[in-house]
Parts: sequence; C-alpha cells; structure tokens
Amino acid sequence: MTNYNALALKKHKQLKGKLSVQLKDDLDSKEKLSIYYTPGVGAVSSYLAEHPEATRDYTWTNNLVAVISDGSAVLGLGDIGPRAALPVMEGKAMLFKHFGGIDAVPIVLDVHTADEIVAAVAAIAPSFGGINLEDIAAPICFEVEDRLKEMLPIPVMHDDQHGTAVVALAALINAVRLTNRQLSNCKLVLVGAGAAGVATAKLLLQYAPGITIVAVDSKGIISNQRTDLNVSKRALLKLTNPEDVSGSLAHALHGADILIGVSQANLVSGPMVRSMAKAPIIIAMANPVPEIMPDIAKAAGVGVIATGRSDFPNQVNNALAFPGIFRGALDNHVHKITDEHKIKAAEVIAALVQKPSAENIIPHISDPRLVSAIADIIR
Amino acid sequence: MTNYNALALKKHKQLKGKLSVQLKDDLDSKEKLSIYYTPGVGAVSSYLAEHPEATRDYTWTNNLVAVISDGSAVLGLGDIGPRAALPVMEGKAMLFKHFGGIDAVPIVLDVHTADEIVAAVAAIAPSFGGINLEDIAAPICFEVEDRLKEMLPIPVMHDDQHGTAVVALAALINAVRLTNRQLSNCKLVLVGAGAAGVATAKLLLQYAPGITIVAVDSKGIISNQRTDLNVSKRALLKLTNPEDVSGSLAHALHGADILIGVSQANLVSGPMVRSMAKAPIIIAMANPVPEIMPDIAKAAGVGVIATGRSDFPNQVNNALAFPGIFRGALDNHVHKITDEHKIKAAEVIAALVQKPSAENIIPHISDPRLVSAIADIIR
Repeated sequence: MTNYNALALKKHKQLKGKLSVQLKDDLDSKEKLSIYYTPGVGAVSSYLAEHPEATRDYTWTNNLVAVISDGSAVLGLGDIGPRAALPVMEGKAMLFKHFGGIDAVPIVLDVHTADEIVAAVAAIAPSFGGINLEDIAAPICFEVEDRLKEMLPIPVMHDDQHGTAVVALAALINAVRLTNRQLSNCKLVLVGAGAAGVATAKLLLQYAPGITIVAVDSKGIISNQRTDLNVSKRALLKLTNPEDVSGSLAHALHGADILIGVSQANLVSGPMVRSMAKAPIIIAMANPVPEIMPDIAKAAGVGVIATGRSDFPNQVNNALAFPGIFRGALDNHVHKITDEHKIKAAEVIAALVQKPSAENIIPHISDPRLVSAIADIIR
Repeated sequence: MTNYNALALKKHKQLKGKLSVQLKDDLDSKEKLSIYYTPGVGAVSSYLAEHPEATRDYTWTNNLVAVISDGSAVLGLGDIGPRAALPVMEGKAMLFKHFGGIDAVPIVLDVHTADEIVAAVAAIAPSFGGINLEDIAAPICFEVEDRLKEMLPIPVMHDDQHGTAVVALAALINAVRLTNRQLSNCKLVLVGAGAAGVATAKLLLQYAPGITIVAVDSKGIISNQRTDLNVSKRALLKLTNPEDVSGSLAHALHGADILIGVSQANLVSGPMVRSMAKAPIIIAMANPVPEIMPDIAKAAGVGVIATGRSDFPNQVNNALAFPGIFRGALDNHVHKITDEHKIKAAEVIAALVQKPSAENIIPHISDPRLVSAIADIIR
C-alpha cells in the first residue's frame, strides 16, 4: 500500500502549500492600474456604496467561499488547533475549486467559544459569497451554525453535518430500493452522535418520518437512562429511541435493517452484522478505517456495504454533495440551504445511478454530471 | 482624458471581480486526492500539531498576506463600509501579486470599533503570513495597529501610515540633496493629520531629529490654542510645532522649506508657494488631485514638485514600498516591521535613482530592482 503520509509531507513542503491567488487580468500597463486600482476603482466603490446588492457582480464574492475551522475536530485527529488544521482546510479549498469551480479561501480561527467564533465569522462575512464551516467540534458547531445562518445574508453550511447527511441519505435511497425496503419502516442504528450523526438523524427523520432510529455513542445507546448527555445528545434523544432501549451497540443492532457509522474504526464485528435483519445495509463512514471492513461485512451476509474509502466500491464522500450545493447557492443567489435542498440533493445524487447494484449505489465523486445536477435544484 | 470610471465599472462587471484561487497542483487522480486531502493530509496536520513553527513551510502562509479594511476611510470616498471597499482591497491584492509576487486575500470587516477589529483580525491571523491594514480611519487605526503588532507573531503594517511615510521620506532624501538642504535643518509643513500624516511626521523625526515640523489639518495649524484635537492629534502636537504657532495653512507655509501634503485637492496656491523658502520642496500626495498642480507650483518657483499621480513626473506611491517590505518580511521571517526597517527602505528606494533631478527624485513603481532591493534590508 502506498505510503501517503510520507508522500504528503514531501509534496506539501515542496509546493509550500497548495493554493495561490491569481489575477483575472494583468496589471501590465498604466491604463490597467488606473482601471483596476486608482482612480478607476473609486467609481466601482462609489457605485457599490449606493447599490450594495450589486457587490457580487463587481467583486470575486460571486464565486468565493470561506472554508472556516477552529481546528477543534480535525479528521480523526481531534483538537489540533488552527495552524495544524490549515493543511486540511487548504485541501478542502482544492476540492471546492477542482470539483465545483469555486474559489475557496481557508480561514482558521484562533478562538474556540461559540460567541467568539460567531463574532469572528460575522465580522469577515462581507468578504465572501458563502461560508463552509469545517471540523468544528460538537456541540459548539450546532450553535455556531444556527446563529450564523440566522445573522448572515449568505449561505452558511457546516459540511461535517450536512454534507455527510446528504450523502448518507443518497446512499440509503438506492440501498433500500435494492434490498426491497421502505425507509419509513426501517429500524436504523446510528453509530456516532457528533456533528455528522445528529445532522444525519435529523435529515432522515425529515425524509422518512416513520423511520426508527437508535443512536449510539462511545458509551452505548443514547437513552433516558444516561446521565452524561450534552445538550445536543439530549436533543437527539428526543428524536430517536422511541422505545427507550438502553445498552450496548451490539444490543442496538439486534434486528436492525440499517447501520450508519460516523464514528470509529472497527467498532462492528461479523457476529453483530449476523444479528441484524436479513441482508442489512451498512454505511460505515469512519475515516480512514471504517466501522467494519467490507470483506467482514460481506462474510456476515450484508446486503449492501458502503464506506468513505476510495479503494472500495460505494464511496460515500461529502465531496459528492458540497461542491454542487455551494455552486447552486452562489449561482442562484440562495441565502439559506434548507432541509428541502438537502433532501433534493440526496435524491439527485441517488438518481445519477441508473441501475443500482450492491457494488454501485452512489456515483463516483468525479462523475461530471454531479455538480450541475445538484446546483440546478438549489433554488 | 480617458474616462477610467466608465472603463472600471465595465471591466469589473465583465470579470466579476479581479482575483481567483489557483491550485498549485492538479487533483486529477485518486493518488493526488490521497496526498493533498485524506488520508495523506492527516500526516501533515499531525506533524504541524507537533511542530507549529513549521506551518509556514507546509501551507501557503509563507507567501500570503491579508489585506484588511473596515471600509471606514476608503480612498477619498470616506466611510463607505466593507462591501463597497472590497473592489479597492481586491485591487490592492492585485498590486501585491503583480509587484511583489505575494498572494493576497482581501478581508473586509463588518465591525468598526478598535476592540472588534482587533478581535476579528487576531481570530483569523493564523490563516495568514502577514497583515496589511488598509483604509481604516484615524484615530482608530493607530490603536488597532499597535495592539495587533503587540499580539501577533506575524508582521502587521497599516500601509496608509507607513507605506506613505516611507515613500515620502524616500522622495525627500533625494529632493533635499538636489536643493542643497540638510533635512535636520529644514522647516517642514505637513498638511493632513490623519493616518498618513501622523506616521510621516514620526518617521521624519526618527530620521532627521533636528527637523521642525508644523502640522496643519482642515482647521489650521495644530497648536496648543486648539481645543478640538483628538488623541492622535494631541500626540502629534507633542512632536511638532515647537514654537507653538497657530493660524492658517498660509501662515504656516511662510518661509518653510518643505510641504508634504496628505490631505485634499487644491489646498495650496501659487502665492503660498512664493511665501515659502527659495526653491521649496513640495510633495503633494492627495489623490487623485494633488494639493497643488505641478504647473502652478513650477510657475511659483518650486524647487522640486512630486505628486501621487502617474501622469506627472515623480510619482510618490505606496506601491514603491509595501511589496518589497512584505516580500522581505515573509522571506526573512521578520515578525515586526520597525522604524529602522522603514528608514532603510526609504534609503534604498532613494538610492535607486542614480542621478536625481527635479523631474526624477524617485524610481518608477515598475522598476524591477525595487522589490528585491527593499526585501533584502527587511531582516
């Protein structure tokens, strides 16, 4: 297996970072200096002072997203702080440009309370056309996103939450069809009650109100027996576990139709899969090592297994969703990304697979139809 | 005369802003995704969590400056707010790239008190290798810059202050030589007591401690008679006007060797110039129309006249200084730009003119030797 760690260190140092700023025209004459800077630019600023709604037409904000993180929940690395988070945010900005054609600038924050993060992001917001929040720890991420969505006149999306929820739903739409289920009748076990888990549960309940979800965190099933639940887990409990069962992950999985994992490597064993309903659906998105490896799941009789990895079939990756969502929001002047947008995005993604099979429930992230198909429904 | 206003409006709308983000390598293979994003990028982040001082070597911050404004004192337009200021900041970012090869990102702030500006800039500072403050109104700009310089481990410079001071000093160095003066013996009238005026006075007093400066604002000479002075003008008074004269600009100019203008169009008349010392020096930087037009100054017997305009000889423009100053600070890991740096930068700029003449006291902003000559002394 390729040692990506060594290669990554080498290439990052060699390139000295992964982004640069490009000028849309040269500044190679006195005339151009006079058009793009003084005195000409003064006319543009005067015009925008009178017509603020035209700012997007005269500045790069029409195609510009900030990728913002405080570095408190980065990949599987945890709270590594803003500076160490920067390579991930530069990488995310690359994905924005490569997949969505969107200019993205990484902004890492040296503040960590909800009040401070909201204040900093609101202060710089006029610089951008959209805000992608990234790798901010739960439960602060929920408050930060809610308040910024309320305050700002541009789209704000915490991708760890909603990008994950959209692609998980997209995968499920085809997986339940393939295994002859109705999502509304399914019992689903959600492993992981952080940002991604909470958002996924909420979106699934919007899409398939009859679904039964049991959420599990590192301490077991989230139930009324638990005395250690934070605000967001208590909110999650209100939406899930209607029979108020308690116990372990293994207990939760008994008879379940679906397992969605947004947690940690290797939490799920073959015997656990065998205890689920016949031909269950497993979407195991822990990265880089999923909650269960596909070969183990298959040996235990799984109906469909998907992971976050590019080296197995059925890669369920946020990059399927966020480029198209922001492309549409920017192009169609959409200021709030709603649950309806997310559900439509999931349906559009699922529909791009014309003949779903156990090895093909979701398009490839480089499918050229993805971005425009999603962007088209963000209106 | 070309109508730059109409051309600027047309080109800005056509290009939809002037900047874009470029990737330093393609993302056209699964391998590159694994190197620049997950899983490889995790190794880079882990390394930086252990070795924060290496962040500049592995991210784009080594060549990245934020151009930050709250839009409170933009060009001659005044307090037009962050959105309307954005075209100017995009233009400044173009100058950074074109002249200095420096990636620059415009950040406009929707906050306006010193506390809020400092908090926002400090919060986002780890995203950048340097901070160029721009078009923030006096006196708030002084407190904002002082506090950020104190707090942050990266260079912070308010260019309206220090870029202007450096290029004014550079022009003066050659102008006093040409007119056989010693700067330390000169009487200098400074017209304009905002950000640029205050910084210019301070730098001149560092460079030539014997110089006599009389500062004049829109209400007249800044003296102890005045009861309307804000904090920064009171501080300026402590450094200037040793004989505590009061009165008008015309009164101040009587017998003066030098006039430096950082104020408004057409404040200075031919008779005022005639009342100055023989063959006086005038550096009239108001933009786009200087404090006195060169033909009027020449008819009144000026020794040297310089303006901020590119269509007259002797263009005294900040773009002579800031690209080299930041180039040097970034490349030489300099975290504080000091008065000594600014004085050396002015000397280097002046020295690039091998044979100063009345029409040639300062290099052209596109002189290819400028950036590296200045960068070399920022150590």
